[in-house]
Formats: sequence, C-alpha cells, structure tokens
Amino acid sequence: MPRPRHALVVFAMAVVCALAAGTGHPLAQSRPRARALGVPFHGTPGPLNAITDVASVEVGHTTIVRGDGPLVVGQGPVRTGVTAVWPRGRRWSPVFAGWFAGNGFGEMTGAPWVVEGGVLGGPVMITGTYSVGAVRDAVNSYFHEILRTPIPWHQPVVGETSDAFLNDGQGQHVTKAHVFDALTSARGGAVPEGNVGGGTGMVAHGFKGGIGTASRTTGGHTVGVLVQANYGTREQLTIAGVPVGREVVGAERRQAQGPRPPADREGSIIVVVATDAPLLPHQLERLARRVPMGIARLGGTAGNGSGDIFIAFSTANPGAAAETGATPLTWLPNNDLTPFFDATVDATEEAIVNALVAAETMTGIDGHTAYALPHDQVQAILKKYNRLSR
Amino acid sequence: MPRPRHALVVFAMAVVCALAAGTGHPLAQSRPRARALGVPFHGTPGPLNAITDVASVEVGHTTIVRGDGPLVVGQGPVRTGVTAVWPRGRRWSPVFAGWFAGNGFGEMTGAPWVVEGGVLGGPVMITGTYSVGAVRDAVNSYFHEILRTPIPWHQPVVGETSDAFLNDGQGQHVTKAHVFDALTSARGGAVPEGNVGGGTGMVAHGFKGGIGTASRTTGGHTVGVLVQANYGTREQLTIAGVPVGREVVGAERRQAQGPRPPADREGSIIVVVATDAPLLPHQLERLARRVPMGIARLGGTAGNGSGDIFIAFSTANPGAAAETGATPLTWLPNNDLTPFFDATVDATEEAIVNALVAAETMTGIDGHTAYALPHDQVQAILKKYNRLSR
Amino acid sequence: MPRPRHALVVFAMAVVCALAAGTGHPLAQSRPRARALGVPFHGTPGPLNAITDVASVEVGHTTIVRGDGPLVVGQGPVRTGVTAVWPRGRRWSPVFAGWFAGNGFGEMTGAPWVVEGGVLGGPVMITGTYSVGAVRDAVNSYFHEILRTPIPWHQPVVGETSDAFLNDGQGQHVTKAHVFDALTSARGGAVPEGNVGGGTGMVAHGFKGGIGTASRTTGGHTVGVLVQANYGTREQLTIAGVPVGREVVGAERRQAQGPRPPADREGSIIVVVATDAPLLPHQLERLARRVPMGIARLGGTAGNGSGDIFIAFSTANPGAAAETGATPLTWLPNNDLTPFFDATVDATEEAIVNALVAAETMTGIDGHTAYALPHDQVQAILKKYNRLSR
Amino acid sequence: MPRPRHALVVFAMAVVCALAAGTGHPLAQSRPRARALGVPFHGTPGPLNAITDVASVEVGHTTIVRGDGPLVVGQGPVRTGVTAVWPRGRRWSPVFAGWFAGNGFGEMTGAPWVVEGGVLGGPVMITGTYSVGAVRDAVNSYFHEILRTPIPWHQPVVGETSDAFLNDGQGQHVTKAHVFDALTSARGGAVPEGNVGGGTGMVAHGFKGGIGTASRTTGGHTVGVLVQANYGTREQLTIAGVPVGREVVGAERRQAQGPRPPADREGSIIVVVATDAPLLPHQLERLARRVPMGIARLGGTAGNGSGDIFIAFSTANPGAAAETGATPLTWLPNNDLTPFFDATVDATEEAIVNALVAAETMTGIDGHTAYALPHDQVQAILKKYNRLSR
Repeated sequence: MPRPRHALVVFAMAVVCALAAGTGHPLAQSRPRARALGVPFHGTPGPLNAITDVASVEVGHTTIVRGDGPLVVGQGPVRTGVTAVWPRGRRWSPVFAGWFAGNGFGEMTGAPWVVEGGVLGGPVMITGTYSVGAVRDAVNSYFHEILRTPIPWHQPVVGETSDAFLNDGQGQHVTKAHVFDALTSARGGAVPEGNVGGGTGMVAHGFKGGIGTASRTTGGHTVGVLVQANYGTREQLTIAGVPVGREVVGAERRQAQGPRPPADREGSIIVVVATDAPLLPHQLERLARRVPMGIARLGGTAGNGSGDIFIAFSTANPGAAAETGATPLTWLPNNDLTPFFDATVDATEEAIVNALVAAETMTGIDGHTAYALPHDQVQAILKKYNRLSR
Repeated sequence: MPRPRHALVVFAMAVVCALAAGTGHPLAQSRPRARALGVPFHGTPGPLNAITDVASVEVGHTTIVRGDGPLVVGQGPVRTGVTAVWPRGRRWSPVFAGWFAGNGFGEMTGAPWVVEGGVLGGPVMITGTYSVGAVRDAVNSYFHEILRTPIPWHQPVVGETSDAFLNDGQGQHVTKAHVFDALTSARGGAVPEGNVGGGTGMVAHGFKGGIGTASRTTGGHTVGVLVQANYGTREQLTIAGVPVGREVVGAERRQAQGPRPPADREGSIIVVVATDAPLLPHQLERLARRVPMGIARLGGTAGNGSGDIFIAFSTANPGAAAETGATPLTWLPNNDLTPFFDATVDATEEAIVNALVAAETMTGIDGHTAYALPHDQVQAILKKYNRLSR
Repeated sequence: MPRPRHALVVFAMAVVCALAAGTGHPLAQSRPRARALGVPFHGTPGPLNAITDVASVEVGHTTIVRGDGPLVVGQGPVRTGVTAVWPRGRRWSPVFAGWFAGNGFGEMTGAPWVVEGGVLGGPVMITGTYSVGAVRDAVNSYFHEILRTPIPWHQPVVGETSDAFLNDGQGQHVTKAHVFDALTSARGGAVPEGNVGGGTGMVAHGFKGGIGTASRTTGGHTVGVLVQANYGTREQLTIAGVPVGREVVGAERRQAQGPRPPADREGSIIVVVATDAPLLPHQLERLARRVPMGIARLGGTAGNGSGDIFIAFSTANPGAAAETGATPLTWLPNNDLTPFFDATVDATEEAIVNALVAAETMTGIDGHTAYALPHDQVQAILKKYNRLSR
Repeated sequence: MPRPRHALVVFAMAVVCALAAGTGHPLAQSRPRARALGVPFHGTPGPLNAITDVASVEVGHTTIVRGDGPLVVGQGPVRTGVTAVWPRGRRWSPVFAGWFAGNGFGEMTGAPWVVEGGVLGGPVMITGTYSVGAVRDAVNSYFHEILRTPIPWHQPVVGETSDAFLNDGQGQHVTKAHVFDALTSARGGAVPEGNVGGGTGMVAHGFKGGIGTASRTTGGHTVGVLVQANYGTREQLTIAGVPVGREVVGAERRQAQGPRPPADREGSIIVVVATDAPLLPHQLERLARRVPMGIARLGGTAGNGSGDIFIAFSTANPGAAAETGATPLTWLPNNDLTPFFDATVDATEEAIVNALVAAETMTGIDGHTAYALPHDQVQAILKKYNRLSR
C-alpha cells in the first residue's frame, strides 16, 4: 500500500484498497513478514501463515485514508476502516464460538449471545471506536439488503480499538457502504496486514500497528489468528525474548505522540482465533483465554485502558448451525487441547509481530506520525542477542 | 398517550411524546398503576414508586409512532423509540455499576467495561434491536456536540429488545436526533410507562408491554428499577401468585400474533437497577443477579430467545468518578445487603406489572395488534383467588 | 424415619438410615409428598417425580442422628449426614456438566474443573458445612480403596449447607466410613426426602428442611432435580403463589430459633439438576442459571448469607467420557432449550416443597427445635386462596 | 534445607522445617536467589523481594519428608506439606480479595465466597491434591481450638497442586497437626523457598519446583507474589526470554519422569498476590487475571491438565472487615492500576524463577527424581544470549 502521507487520497481509495486487500494484490503485501526477517517463533504455521489457513474463513478490509493536516471533526483527516472475518464464507452459518476479555476497556458488541449460546452467526467485524454502531447496524442490513437471507434474530459482533491518534474518530467516517465493501470483498488466500481495514490508524508498542495474522497446525488441524493491534508501550516491546523496544535508535526512536489521545500503552487489541478442530463452545472460550499469554510474549501487560477482547470459533461441526432437533457433533476431549493452547499462544505472538512488521509509517491528524518498526534494527538487535534465525 | 392506530402520526409526534414523557404531562400517565388496581406487592415504595426516587436519576423517552398498514421496510409503520436513564443527571459522572445477563440472547453494548472497571460513565439507553448501533454512536456525539464535555474514552451502554412484531425494525427509524431528544428531555419526577420510549413497540406475556418502573426503600436508602418488558408467554403470566394469563377471557384473550416475529415468549427484558446506597461494583453485580428472581414471580423462565440483560448502579460515592489518586469511598458490608436483594426482586416484580398495566392496545405493521392487559379482568381474577388488596 | 426427639439414638442408626434411604424402605417415605397434599405445580413429572427418573442416576444417603441435650463440641448432639448423587451409577464415568452460583456464600469443591472442562467425573456429594473436607478426601479414597478404579486426577465435588442450628457442626462427625456408606448404598428408585443424608439437620423458610426431589419430562427427555434446602425466612414462604409462611398459626407458628446460628434466612441451598437430554456444558450452565427462578417461586431472594450453589449434568453423550481423539456427540440446539428451562424451574420449585413436606420436626443441640411444615394448615391456606388442587 | 534423598527423615523433621521456615533460619535459604545469579527482571522489588514485603502478611510452612523407596499407599515415601499465608497476621480479619482461574484443572476451596463477597476472611492455604480436605477442615478447627475466635461462618481457602510424582499423595499424610503448625509458625520476614511447605514435592518445567516469592514496589505501594509452581515442560522453559529449558545439558538434562503421574507439563500453579494498595474486589480480580501473563514469560501456556488458580488480596482498607453499617474505604481509581498490573506480571515471573532456583534435587517414591535447575548452566545460557545481568 502506498504511503498516503503527502498525497491527497480520494475517497475512491477505499474501494481500491478493499479490492487490493481482498485479492491479495501484490501492492497489499509488499513488505516481508516477521519470520522472513529472521524472527524465531514456535510451532508450525500453515501454508499462508494466516487465519485463512482455516478453510472457509474469509477476510475483507475496507481502508479509508483521505485528507491531511489539522483535525476538523467530521472533515478529517481520515485514517480508519473496517475489517470483516467470515467464519464459513459470506453467508449465515452459525459456528461454535467462545469469548474472553483480557481487559474489558473496549467493546465487542454481540458478546452476550456468543457467551450464552456458544454460537456466532455472522461475521466478526473490527473497526475504530467511534464507528462501532454504524458497523453493527450495517451488518444486519447486509443480510437483508445484499444477501437477502431471512436470518433469525442476530446481534452483530463488532470489536474496536481507537484510532484517535491518527484519525478523526469523532467524525465517524465509516459508512454502511464501507461495511458492505468489507463484507463483500472478503475472500480466502493471503491476508493484507498492517495499515489496512480496521487496523488502518492503529499504533502498537509505540510503533505503527494494525492488522496481523498467523497460523499453526497441530494434529491435522489448524489454528489461525488475526489481530488488530493498538496496544502497549515502546518500553515493553519484546520480540523473541529480546527487548527490542528499548534498543531501537535513530529517527524511529521518536515515539508516536501528540496532544490528544495517548498513543502509548493505553490502546487495545482485538484478537480473532479460528480453528477447524471440532471444539465445543466452552473449549473455544479456553482458547480465547490463552490469548493474553501470546500478548505477554511481546511484553504486554494489559494496561487499564487497553481493551483486550477476544473471540474464538470453530468451523468444524456443521451441526452447530442446526436450528432444532438432536444433531450429531464431534468433539476433541479436553485432554487433547494442550497443543491447541500452544498454537493459540504461538499464533497470537506471531500475528502481532506481523502487524508491526507490515505496518508502514503513517501521518494523520494534526501531523501526528506513527513510525514503522525499523526492520533492519530489529534484525540487528535480534542478532546482538543471538536470537536471529539463520 | 392517544392510541395512534387509525391516525397519521407525523414525525413531530416524537418530540411531543418526548416532552410529555419528560414533564410527566397528565397525558403520559392517564391509566392507573398496578397497586392502584389492588395488586398486592411486598415492601415499601418510595414517593414516586419509580426509579427516579433515587435522587439524581433522570429518565427521558423519545416515542416514535407513525404510519399504518402493511410493512414496507424503511417506510414503516413505525412503533419504536429510545429511552435514556442518566444516573447523575445529564452529565458525565461515572458511578459504580454491575452487570448480569439472566439470558444473553440480546445486546447491551458497553458491558465489557462495566464488568471490568465496575463503573458506568454515561447514560443507559434502551431501544429496539435494529437501532442499537445508531443509538450507541449518537451517545458519543451527544457529549461532543451537545454537552461539549471532553469526556475520556467511552463505550456507550445501549440495551435492546425487539419490537419487530409491531414495528419496521429493519427500517432502523431511530435517528441521532431522536437519541438527542431522549437524552435532553430526561428529568426526575414521575416516569411515563407503557408505550413510551424504547418500550413503544414491545409485547410481554402476550399482552402489550413496554416501560415500567417501581422503587423500594430500606434503611434510609432507595432501590429503583426501570424495565423494558418484551418477554414471556400469556400462559406463564402470574400476578401476585395468581395465574392471570391463563384466566383472561373475551376479546383480550386474543394473543398478540402474526406471521413474522414470534410475539410470544421469545422476547427480552432489559432491567436497570439504581440505588443511592453506597454499594461497590461487585455488590451491584449481586443486585443485578437478583433480577431474574423478580421476573420469576411473574412466571418468567428466561426462554432461550429472551435477552434478559441487567445493569445496576449506585449514585452514592462521588469518588467513583475520581480519575486518579487515593480517593475516599463508603461501602455497606455484605452483611447489610439482604434488604437490597429483597428490594431489587420486589421492585423488579412491580415494575413489570406496571409496564403491563400502563401499556395500551397498539396496532402496528401488517395490522398486528398487541392487546392491553384488561384491568377489570385482572381485578376479578385476583379477587377470585382472594388476592385483591382491599 | 422415626422422630428422634425423645430417644437416645445410637450410632448404629446411621447405618440403618443409610439402608432405609438406599432401599426406599417404606419407613423412609412415610409422609405424603407435596402434590398428594394438593399443591398445584406446572409441567409433567416422571414416574418417580425424582432425580432418579433420569436413568442411571443413583442417590445414597447416610443419616447420622445421635445424642440429645446441650452442645459439647466433638460430643454432639449429632444431626448430620451425607448424600451422594452418582450421574451414571457407581463408577467413574465423566458426564457433561455446568455450574452456577446464585449466591456464593457457600462451598462446592471441585467447581473450577466443572466450569473449565465442562465435565463431572465422580459423584456429587452434599453434607454439612464443617465436614466438606472429610467428604472430599474420602471420595478420592473411595475410588482407590473400594472401586479400585485407576481414575485420572479428580477434584471431588462436595457441596454443603450449615446444620449448625441442630447439629454439632464444629464436631465434624462425618467420617470416611459415612461417606463410603452413602456412596455404596446409592441406587435408583424412590429417593428418601426430608431429614436424610446431608439434609438431616437443615432448616428452610423457618420450618424443618432437608432433601427434596422432583422431575419433569419434556420431548422424550427428563429433567430431575435434587435439593438440600436450608435457606429462607418464614415470612417469605410462598407455595403455589400463596403466602403460606405468613399464615401458619398455632404451635407450628414457633419459628426455629436459638442463640447460636441464625435459623432464619441466612441458610443455603444446594441444587443438583440432572437430565438425559444431550446438552453441552454451556447449555447445562444455562440450566443451572435457571435454578434461582425456581427458588424465587417459593419467595426466596438469595440473602447475603445464603450459599445457593448449583450443578447440572447430562447423562447423555457417552462421548463425554472419552479420554482422547475425535469423538461423536449429539446436541440439542439452543432453540430447543426453553422447555428444559421451564422443567428446571418447575422441578426446583417442587423439589423444595417436597423437602419441606417430607421433613419432620427435629430437636437437636441445646434443645433447638425445627418444626415440620404442618400439612393440614398448608391445605387450609391453599384452599383459602382457591389454589388447592382438586 | 538438607537434601533428604539418602537419609531416613523422621517425623520430627516437619516441625524442624516449619520452625526454620518461619524464622528465616539460614538453613532455609542457603541457595542464591534468581537475581543473584544474574537473571534480569523488570521493576523494583521490595526489601525482601517477597510477599512479606506487604506489611502484615505472614507465611508459614510445614514440610513433611520421610521414608524412601517403593510407594506403599499410606506408608510413603512422603514428600509433601502445607503452606499458610495470613493476610493480616494470625487472626480473623477479612480483606478485600479477587479470584481468577487461568485454567481450572485444580482446586481452590472457598472460591465462591471470595468471588461473591469480594472478601477473604482467613488464611490462604496451599498443599498437595489429596490433602485439600484435611487442610480445609483443619482451618475451621484452628479458629475454634487455637485462636478461640468466634468467627462468623467461614469457607477456608485451600489451593493445591499435585505432588504425586514424588509423594504418596493417596496416603493423605497431611494431618490437622501439620496444618496447625503451618498456621502457628507463620511470620513476616524472609520466606523460605523451594522444597518447603506445600511446594515440597512439586516439579516445574521438568525441574524441581515448589514455593517461590517476589515483590515489586510502585507509587508507595507494594505488590507481593507467592507461587507454588508445579507446571510446565522442560521444552517451554524460557528465562529472561532465553530458551533455557532446551539448552540445559548433562546430568540435569534428565527430565523428571516416572510411570505414574506425568511430571511434565500437566502440573499446576497456585499464585497468591498481595498488595497494600487500596484496591477494591473487582480490581483485585483484575490483578489475578494478569498472573497468566507472568507465567507466559516463562513459556507456560496453561496446558489442559494444569490447575492455574490465583487469588489476590489487599491488606489496605480495615473497613473490609466491617460487619455492618456504612463504613469508610479508600480506593485507587482504575486509571491508576496499570503499574499494579505490571508489578503483578513482573513479580509472578520472578517468583517462579525463584522457586526453580531455590528448589534442590529430590528423590521420592519409587526412586523418582526431580533435578534442580543447574545454576551454572542457567548463567552460561543467559550469557550466550547476552542476557546475563552484569
């Protein structure tokens, strides 16, 4: 994705980005990913090392970048977007699901029914804090107006993190059309990372953050993770056990900062965990509860103002979509879960690093700038600590 | 409130109703309340027998009623609205709060932070299912545009029940202006009940439902409850231990019914519990957890499709709004809570009966009609079972 | 069971009672049950109207009654016991399970794994407050010493309510032998109620309480409930919607009372819900969460000092006991659950009334006496309110 | 503590160890602690770097080591014990508390009231799996028999991890006398670590584990942590971000192993967090919820069979012990909590490393041996990765 800092980026860019994101267009993924830089990780990733390694999972992004200069609420500058994750493709098809808040200073609408019923009917959406409502109502409209599916009652699941450091959040620039774009453009394959979709205006560990993804395989099954990373301080940032955040120097040393919203620490992170293993709802909650252990590997401690909210779902068990009557299912007994816990922690860790590695420097409202994690310095620091792979 | 069945009700009516609701205009409360009919209850109510007996609590309703005839999505007919409950008047002033879902087949946005932080910053809003998002985003705008208060990060709390039996829910007719009206028109004093605000299009126990309120006093403190009742079957309805639902005869025997959404049982109920007792967050969750015991007195069993979601807050402890630094508080030890549990159960029970007693027969989309609970029959049935007060 | 008030009851009685309880000996059930008195209830019970209507569920009681006169800690008088509920007969065979605390002022050991894993391996035990530990350790020994089953790690599930009004609780009179007796004597068939097993020394709603059971059938499945009732005030007691507690007169008007432990209100209730419907763990938690709605029908409000702790399990799905590998299961989708919620509430209500109806007047430590609910008065009061069946 | 491998250790040793433990006798702490070895940590510890840096917190251990050779259930060998943590010294004095299960495959009795009431009345006890009941009942007896305090109803809090690799767990060798010893010998000052108290027979990350402690200071307050570490695999073990577990060689490379219980991974960890900061119950639960982030720094992922159960309490607010009536308190608003989350994660991490560093090689039943973490290798490996402090 081109850096929009000095350009007038017109509205149409949202559509362009959505298409690029959805198709895996080379533009969307021009930077190397974390393990290509030599960051060591645990476990075995799937072919794409992405949440889309879980068959049937589709991801769509609408990225909205326009305007520059001083903030005028309602006018911009705009650095926001929306990301859609469909568990079983672009349709109504409930899957088993679980939910957990590592720190509830955030929002994920629709959570009460995920917790109560153990099912997720529609997509998981992620956006900026001030647009949750617009996205939420639009998802219901999408089933009615676009899919023309007579769905049962539905409480859309919409998570958020705040892009207020770079974006005119109060301006609520995400429209129903943007939501429809993200939902419609969703597909399998490589997932654009960094400054895309809901992650467009995010900042993590003092560097530019955003969307990241990774996967792990275990026992013939896959666990995929997608994060929208917007949390943590520079000081905390640890990669592969190495205190990268404290050692970065030079221009990139400048922390993202500004008068308005705190860019450091008190952000948030939304994590979506998908698996094709036949796990029951209470087991998926157990997966979601392991997500903080992945965040901890990066040095995160879930600060008070960080909305760390997680959802996990399983694409196995078509019977999860049954409306009525005794229905066959399959489960993996609890004794088999440890490798899935490992996979969740491992993939969460790598997805966050991928978000940091993919995100590019961005300037938004009032000239606020969030700097990209400098790849060369990461490699040098890992090497200093004898932790660079190969 | 006049019955809007055969009239063309223009948009302006929303404002009129909001004003009537806010001022306690006689029109808004022309029907007797439950205890005036002779329904016996436990405990001692406050002067208004309303949530506004808790000083500083203010309630506002915007009622939107327009159109008649067949449903045309986006056109109407419209039977919906929004209700606002401000804990400490119309301003940002966090109070301690607790949350509980008796059955999570519903939505209350903002719940994760109430649960995590134990505080509620802004108002509690209640509306119809399809308008949650619009209401949610509008609350954030209200602080910015109307109150011009630089509030910290805020996840608005918006609950819902479905008015799809009478209302063009998919049409999403609640606008930002309606939300602002409800928020601005809020005040103390008598609270309009029945077909008002978020409760406009609701059905409970097979009769016309909606908004109801009641209060109890204990040990110098007050517990106030406000419900938006849209749950339960005719068959279940028990008042003062008497099987009223099974014994109603005549025209009103006709149950609310229609092809589209089930009007029976699988509705929902939102309950707001307020108190001026100095209870801590975990104690307020305990209050919220007693709400199902009040619903049970009416015969409710929290059916699978019923979103029974509750929030409780305390207007005591100005220190709950402190931003930083060791701050003095007061608490009532757990040993003192039993009377507050009793009060919560008692006031929930009476608030629901008040909603049923206040609501008037309403016809909405496609000629669907929800009939008012017939007062004379209720009295006759209570008398048959020797349960009519005086 | 003979009334032990004026007799010296020797230790051997415990064994006698255990046998009587286990065999369904006529002595054990000489009094009529609630519906035989004409108390009206909702729903259709199973053949035994007991938790044992759920095939494979077995119940055993050890009842320990000895001594009279002043309390000497460690000496007696003793009015206590232990009750065992085996989900799939007397063996290690994990079942899916859910757990909920209506009010956590009590104990149920083993709950963390029930909540986490969604499974229950061994029996559910119920006893008096001070003997929880002895019972807990003995259950592990029972598998080792008696069943000689190489069970995996196990955290025994032991609930309690306090018999301190009638019993030398501090004396901790429940021994390993008593626990083994209850476990071994368990069987299907009629379940002794009232002053038996863990319920021996309990008081509920100011009358003698103890063990009660009931069941409901729905859609070819059964829900069975067993309670150990030791909660609530006389004033609250409502049966079939009628204020029985306030209207009882004469000798029985005397409330159970004494200097030491409060006999009124601040007791507790343990409820075990069993079903043969193929419900998943999160659905069983939903059943357990409905139990307070059954307690509410009796007038209960879960006072601060009442340990209201509930466990629900399903005997369906042998696959719940699988140790490893993808395993077939069956589930009923959430949409089918409402009748099971109704059944849980209905059976809880009747089980509590059965406990009150079955329990006989008992005198314990220091001459403390808990009076039986007077059957004739209950009938007269129900009749006064036109609620007596037939 | 002398290594008991080749000696006949008589029963009296338990008392000796308890005394040594309580007094901080040099014998009890002859090995260096983790930071003395050069392991780098975050944050500033208190003077003792122990949970006892929180004033009024007292810790007592009873260590039971006797016998050698083949396991004979009930005979030994015995490698077990019990640890007591008193929040406000050796007396009944309720403190605010919170609870969280990172993975509920374990036990902590008394949790329901901690969760419900937000208070902890007595001590926190930790022991081996099969002795939980004995310890639990003994705590109630201790108040009655030793302290002769007329305490209100109390559900003792007893956590456990399994020492079945080294100890005759089924033999249930912890007696009431051992429990009384641990309770009575408790005091402030340096806390013995490693093979002491409940930690005597524990194994963590494939090395000998047990009790460890650490503390952090922040803003004039202290957070102290005590762990009983018995979880995790050798492969996972990461210290200061370095893969120590994978790099250890030589004799110590032999993993603890044996036919009976798995010594690897599927253990458990109990963590007690204490603070003198005036935190409310819901805030203390938030602290407890950060503990897994500390475990994650060691490489832990909370495997299915790991009982990771945590309790946090605050010694501030004497008003937490109030029985009735409006009572003054102090709180720190949520905004102030982030440093306490950091402190909890940091101190948990260091307490675990301290447990591993303090524990000495131990041989138990059937010749099973758990090897101590080799200090020299840890230093060499940290150096290899440029992570050795100074």
